Amino acid sequence: MIVKSILSVKGHDVLTTSPTTTLAEGAKTLAEKRIGALVITGADNRVVGIVTERDIVRAIAAHGASALTMAVSEFMTRKVVTCSEADTVASIMEQMTAGKFRHIPVVEGHRLVGIVSIGDVVKWRLHEMEQEHSALRDYIQTA
Amino acid sequence: MIVKSILSVKGHDVLTTSPTTTLAEGAKTLAEKRIGALVITGADNRVVGIVTERDIVRAIAAHGASALTMAVSEFMTRKVVTCSEADTVASIMEQMTAGKFRHIPVVEGHRLVGIVSIGDVVKWRLHEMEQEHSALRDYIQTA
Repeated sequence: MIVKSILSVKGHDVLTTSPTTTLAEGAKTLAEKRIGALVITGADNRVVGIVTERDIVRAIAAHGASALTMAVSEFMTRKVVTCSEADTVASIMEQMTAGKFRHIPVVEGHRLVGIVSIGDVVKWRLHEMEQEHSALRDYIQTA
Repeated sequence: MIVKSILSVKGHDVLTTSPTTTLAEGAKTLAEKRIGALVITGADNRVVGIVTERDIVRAIAAHGASALTMAVSEFMTRKVVTCSEADTVASIMEQMTAGKFRHIPVVEGHRLVGIVSIGDVVKWRLHEMEQEHSALRDYIQTA
């Protein structure tokens, strides 16, 4: 199973914002849209970073209330791990577990075409393993 | 596989705090300890709530900087879903996926004996399914 399969069901929408957005605005967007991460894009629409709930909590821990008026670019992860639509769900799940991150933007060429969360990945991987399971069980029962 | 198996490896430590802790202090603890949730306990050491990174982001979205001086009790989830050590990993995984929460305190009697995260659950459930898989494959190859 590949990332394209997940996006074909969940859709290609990704919430992006500019690096100059304040942390307070970023928090508001996450809360309103009930999501866990914001992709930060530059002038040419390329991915320049990602800001998650965890980054916001750490910013507040480090700077207190003054963090809220600072730009998201101060706290975003700049080395964003991305994947392509052709990557397998199993491989990105391993990357997320090893790197301890919960969101992975999907990029084709330099175009952002979607985002996949640990929740999506888990759901699909379990579904896939259950299918493999029942195929093996059927095989045993009919052998 | 049951919750007790997870706790026997990850340990029984749970970070707790009182309902009067400020949100700023709560955020600091989460950041310092690199965890995603704080269990809130009352005077008799019973679980009275849980505060996660998501709750902190939503508090800031709703109240801005003034949220930081407010008590965690204002923002905690009061109806905490808990589990016991004898619950299966598969059953709590379903609850977490359906209820969209990432942490589940483990309670025996009224005593808090551990906490399990979606990350723990995923890791163990995958491990378990892979074992079942290879058992089925072995069976097929030797049949």
